[in-house]
Amino acid sequence: MSKKGLKIATIGGGSSYTPELVEGFIKRYDSLPISELWLLDIPEGEEKLTIVGNLAKRMVEEAGVPMTIHLTLDREKALQDADFVTTQFRVGLLDARAKDERIPLKYDVIGQETNGPGGLFKGLRTIPVILDIIKDMERLCPHAWLINFTNPAGMVTEAIYRHSNWRKVVGLCNVPVGIKMGVAKALDVEADRIHVDFAGLNHMVYGMDVYLDGKCVTEDVINKITSGDSSMTMKNIVDIGWEPGFLKALNMLPCPYHRYYYKTSDMLAEEKKNAAEEGTRAEVVQQLEKELFELYKDETLRTKPEQLEKRGGAYYSDAACNLIDSIYNDRGDIQPVNTLNKGAIGSIPDDSAVEVNCIITKDGPKPLAVGDLPVSVRGLVQQIKSFERIAAEAAVSGDYDQALLAMTINPLVSSDTTAKLILDEMLEAHKEYLPQFQ
Amino acid sequence: MSKKGLKIATIGGGSSYTPELVEGFIKRYDSLPISELWLLDIPEGEEKLTIVGNLAKRMVEEAGVPMTIHLTLDREKALQDADFVTTQFRVGLLDARAKDERIPLKYDVIGQETNGPGGLFKGLRTIPVILDIIKDMERLCPHAWLINFTNPAGMVTEAIYRHSNWRKVVGLCNVPVGIKMGVAKALDVEADRIHVDFAGLNHMVYGMDVYLDGKCVTEDVINKITSGDSSMTMKNIVDIGWEPGFLKALNMLPCPYHRYYYKTSDMLAEEKKNAAEEGTRAEVVQQLEKELFELYKDETLRTKPEQLEKRGGAYYSDAACNLIDSIYNDRGDIQPVNTLNKGAIGSIPDDSAVEVNCIITKDGPKPLAVGDLPVSVRGLVQQIKSFERIAAEAAVSGDYDQALLAMTINPLVSSDTTAKLILDEMLEAHKEYLPQFQ
Amino acid sequence: MSKKGLKIATIGGGSSYTPELVEGFIKRYDSLPISELWLLDIPEGEEKLTIVGNLAKRMVEEAGVPMTIHLTLDREKALQDADFVTTQFRVGLLDARAKDERIPLKYDVIGQETNGPGGLFKGLRTIPVILDIIKDMERLCPHAWLINFTNPAGMVTEAIYRHSNWRKVVGLCNVPVGIKMGVAKALDVEADRIHVDFAGLNHMVYGMDVYLDGKCVTEDVINKITSGDSSMTMKNIVDIGWEPGFLKALNMLPCPYHRYYYKTSDMLAEEKKNAAEEGTRAEVVQQLEKELFELYKDETLRTKPEQLEKRGGAYYSDAACNLIDSIYNDRGDIQPVNTLNKGAIGSIPDDSAVEVNCIITKDGPKPLAVGDLPVSVRGLVQQIKSFERIAAEAAVSGDYDQALLAMTINPLVSSDTTAKLILDEMLEAHKEYLPQFQ
Amino acid sequence: MSKKGLKIATIGGGSSYTPELVEGFIKRYDSLPISELWLLDIPEGEEKLTIVGNLAKRMVEEAGVPMTIHLTLDREKALQDADFVTTQFRVGLLDARAKDERIPLKYDVIGQETNGPGGLFKGLRTIPVILDIIKDMERLCPHAWLINFTNPAGMVTEAIYRHSNWRKVVGLCNVPVGIKMGVAKALDVEADRIHVDFAGLNHMVYGMDVYLDGKCVTEDVINKITSGDSSMTMKNIVDIGWEPGFLKALNMLPCPYHRYYYKTSDMLAEEKKNAAEEGTRAEVVQQLEKELFELYKDETLRTKPEQLEKRGGAYYSDAACNLIDSIYNDRGDIQPVNTLNKGAIGSIPDDSAVEVNCIITKDGPKPLAVGDLPVSVRGLVQQIKSFERIAAEAAVSGDYDQALLAMTINPLVSSDTTAKLILDEMLEAHKEYLPQFQ
Repeated sequence: MSKKGLKIATIGGGSSYTPELVEGFIKRYDSLPISELWLLDIPEGEEKLTIVGNLAKRMVEEAGVPMTIHLTLDREKALQDADFVTTQFRVGLLDARAKDERIPLKYDVIGQETNGPGGLFKGLRTIPVILDIIKDMERLCPHAWLINFTNPAGMVTEAIYRHSNWRKVVGLCNVPVGIKMGVAKALDVEADRIHVDFAGLNHMVYGMDVYLDGKCVTEDVINKITSGDSSMTMKNIVDIGWEPGFLKALNMLPCPYHRYYYKTSDMLAEEKKNAAEEGTRAEVVQQLEKELFELYKDETLRTKPEQLEKRGGAYYSDAACNLIDSIYNDRGDIQPVNTLNKGAIGSIPDDSAVEVNCIITKDGPKPLAVGDLPVSVRGLVQQIKSFERIAAEAAVSGDYDQALLAMTINPLVSSDTTAKLILDEMLEAHKEYLPQFQ
Repeated sequence: MSKKGLKIATIGGGSSYTPELVEGFIKRYDSLPISELWLLDIPEGEEKLTIVGNLAKRMVEEAGVPMTIHLTLDREKALQDADFVTTQFRVGLLDARAKDERIPLKYDVIGQETNGPGGLFKGLRTIPVILDIIKDMERLCPHAWLINFTNPAGMVTEAIYRHSNWRKVVGLCNVPVGIKMGVAKALDVEADRIHVDFAGLNHMVYGMDVYLDGKCVTEDVINKITSGDSSMTMKNIVDIGWEPGFLKALNMLPCPYHRYYYKTSDMLAEEKKNAAEEGTRAEVVQQLEKELFELYKDETLRTKPEQLEKRGGAYYSDAACNLIDSIYNDRGDIQPVNTLNKGAIGSIPDDSAVEVNCIITKDGPKPLAVGDLPVSVRGLVQQIKSFERIAAEAAVSGDYDQALLAMTINPLVSSDTTAKLILDEMLEAHKEYLPQFQ
Repeated sequence: MSKKGLKIATIGGGSSYTPELVEGFIKRYDSLPISELWLLDIPEGEEKLTIVGNLAKRMVEEAGVPMTIHLTLDREKALQDADFVTTQFRVGLLDARAKDERIPLKYDVIGQETNGPGGLFKGLRTIPVILDIIKDMERLCPHAWLINFTNPAGMVTEAIYRHSNWRKVVGLCNVPVGIKMGVAKALDVEADRIHVDFAGLNHMVYGMDVYLDGKCVTEDVINKITSGDSSMTMKNIVDIGWEPGFLKALNMLPCPYHRYYYKTSDMLAEEKKNAAEEGTRAEVVQQLEKELFELYKDETLRTKPEQLEKRGGAYYSDAACNLIDSIYNDRGDIQPVNTLNKGAIGSIPDDSAVEVNCIITKDGPKPLAVGDLPVSVRGLVQQIKSFERIAAEAAVSGDYDQALLAMTINPLVSSDTTAKLILDEMLEAHKEYLPQFQ
Repeated sequence: MSKKGLKIATIGGGSSYTPELVEGFIKRYDSLPISELWLLDIPEGEEKLTIVGNLAKRMVEEAGVPMTIHLTLDREKALQDADFVTTQFRVGLLDARAKDERIPLKYDVIGQETNGPGGLFKGLRTIPVILDIIKDMERLCPHAWLINFTNPAGMVTEAIYRHSNWRKVVGLCNVPVGIKMGVAKALDVEADRIHVDFAGLNHMVYGMDVYLDGKCVTEDVINKITSGDSSMTMKNIVDIGWEPGFLKALNMLPCPYHRYYYKTSDMLAEEKKNAAEEGTRAEVVQQLEKELFELYKDETLRTKPEQLEKRGGAYYSDAACNLIDSIYNDRGDIQPVNTLNKGAIGSIPDDSAVEVNCIITKDGPKPLAVGDLPVSVRGLVQQIKSFERIAAEAAVSGDYDQALLAMTINPLVSSDTTAKLILDEMLEAHKEYLPQFQ
C-alpha cells in the first residue's frame, strides 16, 4: 500500500451514515493513517453529498488530522489507486425500499429491506451495479479491498463470488456486533469480555456459543432471553419474544432477522399494523433522514451528531473501521464477516459466501472451521443460500423464470401464485432500476 | 429363506387395503411362492381383521393358490420365522388422523396426514410402536425384511436408522409410481416406456428427469403439465395447477405433496373450504371405509372389489409386491424406495433415509448416485430432513422442547407461538397414544 | 440415431484386437444392427489396417450380416455422423511401450504400461491425441458416444472431463469382467450367477462385495484366494499370491494391478528377472503380434483365430459390445465402467472419473452409490486420482515441473531425485510423441 | 481452575526434556502461576526421575518462583485435581526405539521413530497406556486438559478421539515451530514477522503459505530452499535437498519428515549408512542422554544446560508452555496443534485428528478452515490418516490382521510379504510391551 498514507473511496458517500465512518477513521488515525477519503455519489445524490461532505470536512478539521476529504461524482477519480473501497449505496434510494416494504404486504407477505421479496428486489437492483464497479476496480485499483456494506450484503457477496473473478471482497454487517453488545448488556458485563461463535449467512447468522472470559455461558444467555430479561433486537426489527422451549431446544442465539422466519405470522401482523399506523420502516427513515440532513447543514456542527444513532446502523462504523484497520495492520483478531466459505461451514458449498468468525489478516479474512451446522438449522440456512444464489443468477441474467423461482422458494412467500403476483407488480414498480429485465 | 415357501406377516392386517396386497400376491404366486400370509392386528381391530381376513381367504380359494391365510392378534406367532414383515397400521386409526387434519386448521396451518403438524404427530404416535416391533423381529425373525408402508414413511425409516440397529428395512410409497403413471398418461404412452429419475425424501420426491424409451423428455412433460394438459396429482391432494414459469425454472417434476410447500396459502384455503363443506380427508375416508367393509362382508365377494380404488392407495400393492418379488428373486431392477442414503444424494447425510431410485437385489436396495440436488431444492429437502430427524428424536425421548423445535422448523408452521399452541392442543388430543410425553 | 442402422468408427482400427470386436458385433447383430464399421488408422499403420481390415471383411461375409467394413486413413470420413466412436490406439506403438517398461527398471522402479512412470508417459502421449479427436467429434458427430479403450483409460477419461466439454464418454476396461470370471472359476459356478460390487479407479478397482445368486460370499472368495485355490490374475501381470492376513483384513477383492502397490518390491524383482530372461511384456507382445498378423493374412481365415486369446485382452470385446448394446437398447443392466463420479464414491471428487458399477441406459451410465470407500484404501485411491489429475494437467500444459510432481507423488516412484532421472530419460526417449514438452 | 494456582502433572517426568519444560514454566510464571508441578514416572524410571526432578527443584529455587516440584511414582496423586496433564513418556524407553529403527532396515524399509513400521509399533505400545491414563483422568481430574507430546502424536490423538470419550486433548509437536524458525532464518528476519498457514497431519504437515509481515512470500521461500540457501530440516532427520522442480510444482513447504515419503530411497540409503557407521538415532540419543543425566546430577547446575539443545526437541518447551498459557489465559492467538478436524481440512473426516492452525482459547483450540488440501497431497495425507486409524484399531483390539493391514498400507513398506516379516519380528521383539497381542 501507498507510502504516503491510505486512500479510501466510499461509494454512496452522500449517505447519512458517512459521519459515523468519518468519526471512526478519525479515532483510528494513529494506526490507520488515511490521507485521502473520496466520497463518491451519483448526480441525483449531489446535494446530499455536498451537505454530508462538508460536515466531514469540518469533522476532520476539528479533529486536527491530516486527512483530505474529496467530494466527487467521478467514479474513475474516486477509485484510481484506492487502497480500500467501501460501498454503502442504495439503488433507487429510500423510495425503492418503501416499495419493497409496501408491495408484498398487499399479498400478506413480509415486506422487508433484505428478506423475502424486498430482499430479492434490492438484490436485483444492486448486483449489476456492484459488478460494474468491480469491472472499474479491476482496471483502476486492482490491489484494493472492497468492503461491502451494501445490502443485501450476503446476496451481493455471493454474486461477486459467482459472477466475477474479484476475490478481495468482504461483506460487512452490524448484526453480529449488535448481538454481542446485547449479550454483554444481558449479562451486565463489558462487551470485551464476551466472545460469540458466529456462523450462518448474512441476516441469518447464529450465535452458536457464547463465552464470558472464555467460559461457555450459552445456556445462561438463553435463559436470560427466554425469561424476558433481554430482548436482543435491533432498531429496525419489531421486538417480539421467543418461545422459551423453542429457544432452549435450538440451543443457539438467533439473530434479530430470524424473527421473520420463526415468527412469520406474528411479524406479518405487526408489520401490517405499523405500516397502517406509522408507515413502513423506509417511510420512518425518510423522515429521520430529512431531519439528519437539516442538522448536517448546520455549519457549527463539527462532530457526529447524537441523533444519528436513531437511524439504526449502530456499530456499522466500528465494524467497518475495525475491519479495515485489521487488514491494514495484519492484526489477526477475530471478526465475523461475510467471506468465502472454503469448507468452514459444512452444510454450505465451499465456494459460497458465509457469515462466520474470521481471523483478519493483511491477506484478508480466514474463516474458523465450524463443521456442520446443527441439524435444526441446516435446512433453513441452505434454503436462504439457494435463494441468494438463484436471485444472483436472475440479477445477472434478467431471466423472469429464475426470478420467479427465487421468489417462490423464499420461505416467506406463501405460494408460487402469490410469488408471481408480487413479482409482476414489483418488476413494474422498479422497472427504471432493472434494465436487465426489459 | 425357507424351503417350504415364504412366510409373510402383515402388521395392521385388518386394513381396508389388505385385498390389494392379497391380489398382488396371488398374481405373482409363480415367482413369489408365499405359503403363509399372517394378518396381524390389535384387539380393537379384531372385527375388521375378521371381515377382511375372510375376504382374503375367499380370494385365495377362488384363485386356487396354495397360500394359507392366518388371522391373529398374537404378534409373536405372526413374526416367528417370517421372511418379510409388512406394516400398514395406523396408531389411533382414522379418528387420530381426523384430529391431525382438523386441529392445525384452527390456527391457519395446513392439517395433513403426513406433512406439517399432522405428520409430526403421526410420527410421534407411530415411531415407538415400530421400534417395539423391531425389538420383536430381532428375536423372532432376524433375517426378515421389514417393508414399511406405515406413514409418515420417511420419518419412520429415518427413526429406524437413527434409533435401532435394524438395517433390513425398506420404506415404501406409491407417490413415485403415481408420478410415472401420470407421465405415461400425459404423454399417452404405455407406462413401461417411461423411466423417471427419482430423488428426494418421502412425500418430497422430485422427478429429476423423465425418459421415454430412454430419451430425455423432461421439458416436454413440464410443458404438458404447465399447459394444463396434465394435472399429476393424487386422490387425497387437491389439484391446483403450477405456475408455468416456476416449473420451467425448477426443471423437475414436483410430487403432488410439494403443493403444500410451494402453494401453501392456496392449499390452506382449499383445505379450509373442503373441511367446512365435505369434511377433512380422514372424515371422507372414514365413510369410504365403512362402505368398503360392508362390501367385504358379502360372502359372495371372492375378488378385490373395484370400489377399493377410490380409497387413494393406488399402486401400493404393486409397489409392495414388486419390491418383495425383486428382493426374493434378486431381480436387480430399478425401483424408487426409501433407504439409507450412503452418499447417493449429496446434500443429505450418508446415514439418513432418502427416497431414491435403487437397484433391488437379494441384498436389498442399492441406490443410484444422484450427486447434489439442484440448488433450488437443496434447502427445502434438507429442512424436511431436519424436521424428520428432530421429530424422530422427540418421538423417542418424549421431550417437549424437541417436539416444539420440530414443529417450529417445519415450513408449514407459521411461527413458534403458533407451533406451541398447536403442539399443546394436539398433545392433549392424542395423549392416549403418546405415553412418552406423560 | 440413424434409421438405416448404426455407424461405428474405430480409431486404431489396425489393432490386432479388431477381430475380437468384429466378432462381438457379428454375434449381436440382431439387437445391434451396425450397418457401417469404419476402421481408421494413421499412415504408419496402413499395412496392419489392410491386413486386419480384410480379415474383418471376410468375417462379416462368412457370418452373412449386412455390415459394411470401411478401411480409411481419413478421420473426417470415419467420424462423420458416427453413432459410436471406439478408440484402441497406441501412440508410438509397442516400441513406446517397451521404453515405458524398460527405462524405469534401470532406476529400480516398476516399468508398466499403465502404472508408475510408464502409465504417466502413456498418458502424456495419448491425452493430446484424444482431446484432438474430441474436437473433431464436436464438429462431425456431436451425438456420438465415445467408448474409450485406450489406456491409461482412467487418466484419459479424467483428462476428457477436466480438459474438454465432452461428456458422452465411457472408459472401458476388461479388469472387472476378468475378476468376475475369476470368482466364477474359483467358486466353480456359471459367471452369470456371480455379481461383484466394483468401485475404485481404472486399474485400481476393488470388488467390494461378491454375491452368488444374490447371497454375499465375499469371505468365502477371499478364503479361496488366500488358500491358494484361485490366483485371480491376468495374462500381463505376474501371479504372486497375497498374504492371507492382509487380504482378510482388507475384506475386499483387489484387482490384479493392485499387486504393483501392495507387493511393489516382489513385483519389481519379478519384472527385472523377466525383462532379463524373456523381455518385457511389450517385447513379448511384439512377437505375439507378428505371429497374429501372419495368421490374419491367411485369406482362408474367415473367423477370429483362437491364438488371439493369448494376447491378453480377454473380454475386451464383450465389455465393449455389451456396453454399446446396452446404450443403444437402453437396457438398464449393470456394468462396471469409467464414468463421472457424481458423488457415487464419497472419497473422490464429484467431477472426477471413477470405475464403478453403473446402470447402462440410452442416456449413458448412471453410477450406483458406493458411499465412502473403506478407510484402508481411501488414501491409495485418492493418491492415484491425484496422480491422474496432475498427469492430465501436465499432458495438456507440457509443464515440466507438473510432470515431475506427477511422477514424484506416484506411489511406485521411490524419490523425487529418481523421478527426475526417469523423467528426463523418458522425455528424451519419447520426444517425437511429446511435442507439448518441446 | 483452582484459585490457589495451577497444578500440572507431567507423565514421564523423568525425561531428559523436563528441564526445558521447567524453564518454560519459570519464564512464564507471571501469566501462568503454576503452584504445583508433579513429575510422575514408573518404577523403572525412578532413578532418572530423581536426578531430573532434583535439577528441576534447583532451577525453581534459583529462579525464586513459588512453584513446588513433586516427584512421584503414584499416578493417582499426580493426576488428582490436576489442571493440565502433559505426557512425554516412551513405553519401552530408547531400547524399544532402537528396535523400531533397526528391524525394518533389515528388510530394506525405513526404520524411524514415528513413521513406517517404527511409528506403527510405537503406536501399538503407547495407545493402550494413554487410554488407561485417560480412564484415570475421567475419575481424578475430569476438567483437566491433556497436552500430549508422546509420539506418534497424530496416531495417539486419533486413538483418543476414536477410542475414548475424552475431548479435552491437544496433540503437540515442535515441527511447525521448527519450520517457522527455518523460514525466519532463510529470510533473515525475526521469527515473529513470519506467519505460516499449516495444515496436514502430525509429522505430515505442510506450510501451505508463508507470510512476512502479512505479505505472502511462499514462492520466495521455496526459491530459497531450492537454491540451497536453506535446508529446513531437524536434528533427527538427515538433510537431503529437494528437487527444485518438484517443490515449485508442489508450491508448499514440506516438513522435514516428508523426506521419508518423497525421498524414500535416498533416505533409506542414508539411514543404512548411518546405522552402520554411527548407530541409529536412538543409539546416538542413548549416548547423549547418558551425558545429559551426568550433567543433571551436578548439584551446582541450577539452570537448563545448553547441551540439551543437541537432543533434538528444540521448541518443544515453547510449544507446550505457549499452548498451556493460551488456554489458561484465553489468549485467542494462533498455534498449530493436533486437534479434531471438524471440517477444517476438507479431505479428512470431520472426526479425525489433524495438525492445523488453531485459535487457542479457554475452550481449547478452534481450527481455521483450510478447505480441501491441494490435489497433489490429498492422497498421501489421506493414506497416512488411514494408516493411523487402522493402527489405532489394532492397538486397541490386538488383532494381528489389522496390524498387518496397517503395516501393508503404509507407503514406506514395500510389500505385504515384507510387511508380514517385519510385523512378526517386531511383535516378538516388543512382546513385553504388547500384551494385547498375546
